[in-house]
Amino acid sequence: MKQQKIIFSNNVSNAIDDTLGTMDYNRLFVLTDVNTRQFVLERLADNHRLAEAHNITIKSGDVNKNLDSATDVWRELCANGATRKSVMINLGGGMVTDLGGFAASTFKRGIRFINVPTTLLSAVDAAVGGKTGINFRGLKNEIGVFNEADAVIISTKFFNTLPDTEIKSGFAEMLKHGLLKDAETYDRLLTFDFKEDSHEHLLDLLKESVEVKAQIVEQDPHEKGLRRALNLGHTAGHAFESLAMDRKSPIPHGYAVAWGLVVELTLSNMLCGFPSARVQEYASFVLENYGSFHITCNDYDNLLQLMRHDKKSEHGEMNFSLLADVGDVKINCEATADDVKAALDIYRDLLHI
Amino acid sequence: MKQQKIIFSNNVSNAIDDTLGTMDYNRLFVLTDVNTRQFVLERLADNHRLAEAHNITIKSGDVNKNLDSATDVWRELCANGATRKSVMINLGGGMVTDLGGFAASTFKRGIRFINVPTTLLSAVDAAVGGKTGINFRGLKNEIGVFNEADAVIISTKFFNTLPDTEIKSGFAEMLKHGLLKDAETYDRLLTFDFKEDSHEHLLDLLKESVEVKAQIVEQDPHEKGLRRALNLGHTAGHAFESLAMDRKSPIPHGYAVAWGLVVELTLSNMLCGFPSARVQEYASFVLENYGSFHITCNDYDNLLQLMRHDKKSEHGEMNFSLLADVGDVKINCEATADDVKAALDIYRDLLHI
Repeated sequence: MKQQKIIFSNNVSNAIDDTLGTMDYNRLFVLTDVNTRQFVLERLADNHRLAEAHNITIKSGDVNKNLDSATDVWRELCANGATRKSVMINLGGGMVTDLGGFAASTFKRGIRFINVPTTLLSAVDAAVGGKTGINFRGLKNEIGVFNEADAVIISTKFFNTLPDTEIKSGFAEMLKHGLLKDAETYDRLLTFDFKEDSHEHLLDLLKESVEVKAQIVEQDPHEKGLRRALNLGHTAGHAFESLAMDRKSPIPHGYAVAWGLVVELTLSNMLCGFPSARVQEYASFVLENYGSFHITCNDYDNLLQLMRHDKKSEHGEMNFSLLADVGDVKINCEATADDVKAALDIYRDLLHI
Repeated sequence: MKQQKIIFSNNVSNAIDDTLGTMDYNRLFVLTDVNTRQFVLERLADNHRLAEAHNITIKSGDVNKNLDSATDVWRELCANGATRKSVMINLGGGMVTDLGGFAASTFKRGIRFINVPTTLLSAVDAAVGGKTGINFRGLKNEIGVFNEADAVIISTKFFNTLPDTEIKSGFAEMLKHGLLKDAETYDRLLTFDFKEDSHEHLLDLLKESVEVKAQIVEQDPHEKGLRRALNLGHTAGHAFESLAMDRKSPIPHGYAVAWGLVVELTLSNMLCGFPSARVQEYASFVLENYGSFHITCNDYDNLLQLMRHDKKSEHGEMNFSLLADVGDVKINCEATADDVKAALDIYRDLLHI
């Protein structure tokens, strides 16, 4: 996998110029959704390269992260003379970077692309690591390829237009990265104050966090092993997300991860010796900042069923990435139904449900 | 790019068993088109693994090498429980291996696939080298990825059901590989007798030929430079192919390459010192076995225009891969309109047009 350039800067216009300045290209395309065209692209209107680029705009929202939108992007690339020497900038949240990355990676067997994530979640998670894709027949990211952007430009510049829940959603992935890295990084995150701390401070923390992910991905780009560490919190988190969807009241992905981490740190404590004081400390942070996701023991069978159907699961078992301590990950941990039910009991206690 | 296993054997059933025996997989899928399901899959009916596999069949022909067919393949993979640990065998000509390779490479960000080419053209060209793709809005292979099959099983077993023109079409790519390799390999090909020689002998020649391509692709998988050597004969060949299409009387791809090589060896002689005796020797072989493609000087402007629009062309120039001698390739050779017109004059002389 090629070496990916990750630039951290709140001067996005300059960062785009610097990046494009090193690339030999003929035509430039900028992919946005209807929101980022209006709220982000216009804020970059003074950039001459962007002003001359051809803008492709797709409908926003995960529901439009599908083959129809990808086909629209391919069609516009074709119709506007894109060649193998063209470059596309994906300017938006995870939906735009995932879909744009897939469209670019498959157009003429791959043109170069640059991700400029505009949400914290896409900055910390989607834009880095080479997972591109679209949903297909109701399955998330069912069609896609592993292919890293040539460059990712990460800033906190556009976050001030985002609601608080979006920031917190992204921050949950940062907590996960902190847990995977070491106590120092993780403890710094726990002191973050969503109301008081500046976007510059957030950018510093974000830089550390993205580097954790980049290091893991570099060692295992195609998720054969180590990269599953990044699944921490996600087996339970995805189950919560699906349950919320079934209840017709969806929850933000990052919130699901924040809550899923409570379950999985509890499992880590039960199965791998993760310190119980760390579990309680984490649960307090989550309760204060994210509240709780309500479940009763009547939901357990449903949740277990969902965890068995996780994409990473191979034979219907429940497969988790757990921790022996902060910074000490154990992948491919299998848990029994009783283990998981006990962890769900403790989850409810910890989050006062 | 992963190491690709290429197996040459006329015991295809055993080769499939041996290959699958080394792979840890859960479900097996076999992709065919309506022809190869009837004429090839049935001949492998005694293979237990294939008999238990789920067969996906698409419509045949280049006109169906499109997003609709790819979507059908994805849908069937979904509906029949394919996971990241599943394997797909693409059993067919270049249309099936190109489309199946693309569908597999993008399903859940890539499942493993095995190519079993059933035509000489796909054996020598399409099945090896990692170019997957589908046509899009009338443009050939506009959407695709570079991704090699885990294994390619090459045989001449199924060729006896093919018309003579199919064999000759594939043989033209073998001649190209011989020209790129060395005088010994090339001269062996020139002695091949389409009427008399056995399929076992053809398999030996095919093995040499595929290895030439595999070596080039290994050094430049994404066609940044050296791989363009494989474009020999194709700039003029594609122009002939398009012209024939405009005339509503399409010609087989390999025939277009055979004739395109006459033009490009002539250009090689004019611009790179390729021996004129070799040009005449080649033209005689082509005239005897392929006949000629009729053009007049009224077609020249049209042909030049087509050559300028070749996919590899970057700025509207005419870009060729040429030879200084057998085995001595020069990529990125630019030719003027006068050069190409002179070469087309000589083409007509050599092929008695």
